[in-house]
Amino acid sequence: MKKKYAVGIDIGGTTTKFGIVTEKGEILVQDRIPTNQHEVVEEFIDDLYNKLMPMIEQHGGVENFIGIGMGAPNGNIYTGTIEYAPNLKWKGIIPIAELMEKNFGLPTKLTNDANAAAVGEMMYGCTKNMKHFITITLGTGVGSGIVIDGKIVVGHDGFAGELGHTVIRPGGRLHKTTGLHGSLESYASATGVRETAIELLTEHPEKESLLRDFSLNELTSQTVYECAMQGDDIANSIFEFTGQILGESLANFIMFSSPEAIVLFGGLTKAGNLLLNPTRQHMEANLLPIFRNKVKLLFSELNEADAAILGASALVWDIKE
Amino acid sequence: MKKKYAVGIDIGGTTTKFGIVTEKGEILVQDRIPTNQHEVVEEFIDDLYNKLMPMIEQHGGVENFIGIGMGAPNGNIYTGTIEYAPNLKWKGIIPIAELMEKNFGLPTKLTNDANAAAVGEMMYGCTKNMKHFITITLGTGVGSGIVIDGKIVVGHDGFAGELGHTVIRPGGRLHKTTGLHGSLESYASATGVRETAIELLTEHPEKESLLRDFSLNELTSQTVYECAMQGDDIANSIFEFTGQILGESLANFIMFSSPEAIVLFGGLTKAGNLLLNPTRQHMEANLLPIFRNKVKLLFSELNEADAAILGASALVWDIKE
Repeated sequence: MKKKYAVGIDIGGTTTKFGIVTEKGEILVQDRIPTNQHEVVEEFIDDLYNKLMPMIEQHGGVENFIGIGMGAPNGNIYTGTIEYAPNLKWKGIIPIAELMEKNFGLPTKLTNDANAAAVGEMMYGCTKNMKHFITITLGTGVGSGIVIDGKIVVGHDGFAGELGHTVIRPGGRLHKTTGLHGSLESYASATGVRETAIELLTEHPEKESLLRDFSLNELTSQTVYECAMQGDDIANSIFEFTGQILGESLANFIMFSSPEAIVLFGGLTKAGNLLLNPTRQHMEANLLPIFRNKVKLLFSELNEADAAILGASALVWDIKE
Repeated sequence: MKKKYAVGIDIGGTTTKFGIVTEKGEILVQDRIPTNQHEVVEEFIDDLYNKLMPMIEQHGGVENFIGIGMGAPNGNIYTGTIEYAPNLKWKGIIPIAELMEKNFGLPTKLTNDANAAAVGEMMYGCTKNMKHFITITLGTGVGSGIVIDGKIVVGHDGFAGELGHTVIRPGGRLHKTTGLHGSLESYASATGVRETAIELLTEHPEKESLLRDFSLNELTSQTVYECAMQGDDIANSIFEFTGQILGESLANFIMFSSPEAIVLFGGLTKAGNLLLNPTRQHMEANLLPIFRNKVKLLFSELNEADAAILGASALVWDIKE
């Protein structure tokens, strides 16, 4: 009998989301646990087991499942290990696929979380018929998944597609967890938008802004968005600047792999055209003519968590029964 | 009878080189014609025919040839056309593969010149056993060929791999033929080295330099190299700066596709360690830790023209007889 379901798991810095998925991409049931409450990975897996195993039992037990697909920061598809993930508490090299197999008795595949989201988009989202595209997640950080010829680019060691860490302002803003200066993530993330806000507010003390009414703690990308929607000049400049940095970076990515589309995910995309317009403008302005007005710039139609769960689950459908 | 030979043709901005190649990658005979003396492509093909056809006849005639492989600026592998090549006199879209087939009666395949060089390197050069690498040609301009999973990356429209035009100093030096500011090519090409020399000499009139003895016309990347080898400070700073720009760019490329090696070709590589040391230093300094001390930085073992002829010829070996 053909096995009916896959488990998809998306391990994020804060929250781990998981669900039971059909081959058609329906998420039948999903739940979540905190990621970083567990000092050691074994405790995390115990916690996950207690929530996930009952869901598996309700869907006919492990014999009804083809396997478990996981996305995680610095997840390596070649080795099934999470390696030196800066945003996770578990340090060094974590053989998580092996640990999961032992605990659940199901074949387990792992990949990078951003790559899982790109696979989800390709199988079930707005790039269903595309063979060349790039997904960029604009969340707390900036993640990316690159698809060329219908396959995720993982490179010779499994770590390709770290576009958030490419440098677009050499010598620019310090990115605290990596020590790099001027990387895309240091500007075009929720954290980056907040930093830009603080910079602009302190550099222009003479300019009035609704943003000045918020405490430093309240100053988030969401606050900036709300003020921009009320016509606040500084708030609008913040998105203009963020879009410029993002657009310049996207132009560079396009001249690398010439994708048909770039798909944007994540919290910052809630800003809609406030972000999209300057991004598109600076992207086009930095392209060679042969690339201009060709590349679609899209917002994902899947929500980010769904895309990652779906993409992770998709890793296992080609496992031989 | 199995056909024995292929023709490889490398169309450059100034010179077109061509040769007769065996499947093992021996160039049996080669010659060259100027590229830009011909206002229309038909005259160029006539000139090429007059030189190349006798070589084909000497090797058993067209029936002994599997086909013609060509590399050209903006050569599109999908369509066999050269499209809007900024460095060629023939404007618009040139159906050169079709024209060659008509004239020579041999199947003809076309690709981008830098991609042809990368294929040559993969089949016959220092990346023979690698499936993930990037070649960068540091000549009058900066070309690139990207190999992922053993295949040249051409993207959805055939134009991928324009790494020389990625921007590494946003708002920086104007690149005259493209109008882009701060692209890699505007710094890390022979033209760029000359511009850096002029900038440094005029910005620091107080500093002594052997370079001041040369006229503007004599000030080439070769002159800069010779002065640097004699211990000239400004000449050394020029290579230091060029290596910094190149190294920063390479770091970005590595975080895109995680290659096993980057192979440098072209005139500027004659500078050897003068260029290689600062390039490596700035490349490593701009990488995430997971990529550090992993990626080989190599000089090609093939000369550039050979690599392009070999790579172009390699395009046709899988044509069915």
